[in-house]
Amino acid sequence: MRDYQLYLIDLDGTIYRGNETIASGVRFVKRLVDQKKDYLFLTNNTTRTPEMVVAKLKTHGITTDIAHVYTPSMATAEYLLHHCQNHDSKISVYIIGQVGLWKEILERPEFIYDEQNPDYVIVGMDTDLTYQKVRVATRAIRAGAVFIGTNADLNLPLGDELIPGNGSQCAMIAAASGQNPMYIGKPEAIIVDMALKRVGTKKEDALIVGDNYNTDIKAGFNSGVDQLLTLTGVTTKEEIKNLKQPTLIVENLDEYQL
Amino acid sequence: MRDYQLYLIDLDGTIYRGNETIASGVRFVKRLVDQKKDYLFLTNNTTRTPEMVVAKLKTHGITTDIAHVYTPSMATAEYLLHHCQNHDSKISVYIIGQVGLWKEILERPEFIYDEQNPDYVIVGMDTDLTYQKVRVATRAIRAGAVFIGTNADLNLPLGDELIPGNGSQCAMIAAASGQNPMYIGKPEAIIVDMALKRVGTKKEDALIVGDNYNTDIKAGFNSGVDQLLTLTGVTTKEEIKNLKQPTLIVENLDEYQL
Repeated sequence: MRDYQLYLIDLDGTIYRGNETIASGVRFVKRLVDQKKDYLFLTNNTTRTPEMVVAKLKTHGITTDIAHVYTPSMATAEYLLHHCQNHDSKISVYIIGQVGLWKEILERPEFIYDEQNPDYVIVGMDTDLTYQKVRVATRAIRAGAVFIGTNADLNLPLGDELIPGNGSQCAMIAAASGQNPMYIGKPEAIIVDMALKRVGTKKEDALIVGDNYNTDIKAGFNSGVDQLLTLTGVTTKEEIKNLKQPTLIVENLDEYQL
Repeated sequence: MRDYQLYLIDLDGTIYRGNETIASGVRFVKRLVDQKKDYLFLTNNTTRTPEMVVAKLKTHGITTDIAHVYTPSMATAEYLLHHCQNHDSKISVYIIGQVGLWKEILERPEFIYDEQNPDYVIVGMDTDLTYQKVRVATRAIRAGAVFIGTNADLNLPLGDELIPGNGSQCAMIAAASGQNPMYIGKPEAIIVDMALKRVGTKKEDALIVGDNYNTDIKAGFNSGVDQLLTLTGVTTKEEIKNLKQPTLIVENLDEYQL
């Protein structure tokens, strides 16, 4: 087994399940810290700011800092800054999302909020989504704005319920605008590439750790990073038996030897 | 040319364009009345009640009554009553839509509103759509409710803008619930069949009149009713030149000889 230097760790289903702590996940992070391995929490959740992620992790017994958190909101901001580096004026954006998305974008001086004629329409999970917001996004995309979805998750687990996720929101805007979004979050390679770039680690030295085959494991396939599937969340061994297998599978993260 | 007995007439793009009157459409209706031909306004709009449709037509110079209006809201109510005729108890429904939809359903004593465990989720155009409404619909459909969309229009024209239509709303619910809706409105045959049944006319004796190839004309193809395309609305002759042709095409309805 390779001696990985950087662990890209999912949160929901891996470290906690809603408000419930997954103890093996927490012990895994503590072992990483003890053995001076680097890690980055790589979540698809855009509703929380990095500070809110750190505070939530604290309630599950993990002490960390915002330098160890990477979200699609951050990846979106950095992607656009990189992509528009020759941009003379500010990058105008219309945003559908919650605080974790719009704070990340709009606190950077390079961006300006524009409902009328934005360069980009950025769409993330928004439990206050309204018809009017979709209408504004549709009009902007039809007028030429580039449509970016932070992540493609069709559903999110909330207790026993599968609530609509950002991929479902984007499906409405795609139908109304006639344009499909470019997605940033897992399973896209973009967010993994940007996380590696941020830390300065080569992909051969990294391992993606998560419970969701369709986001975490596929992000590894798409980016060429090894994957560790933990069966503590949504994916079961049975449902992936005929699919391309992850590098490693464990019942829970206590099984994984550093 | 056949001597049609019943004219199934579209509204927006045929009789008016938003608030603007299409004079040839209005003259066409007056000629029908003068020559004692029967007609039914067959719209895909579910936001207005039949009374509101009659009032709007009056502003465009047409005097008619609600017996001459047929909407997907009415077709949905009648379809469910027919489909559930052996239903012992009330038919429970969760509705996303505006007054023209929920009044049509809920004023009938056979229906009962239920957000928790409805038999049917009925989705129509709703400019007050919220994430929460989509969440309730998603939960109900995932729990087994049948998903019905009043109509599949992805967009509606509003001035120069193409705003999100009910088909776009349904795309979000379909993505989140994993179920595609059964649609009632044009271009489905259901609404045409039910309109013919209501009037008691055979399909060979009817003509669908409208400006939209994808809704009006295809409704004719799907139901086996002849079609008259008027080029006063969204469809141009150019864009359908390689497609199956309507029975008749006119620049405007003055050209059509009764």
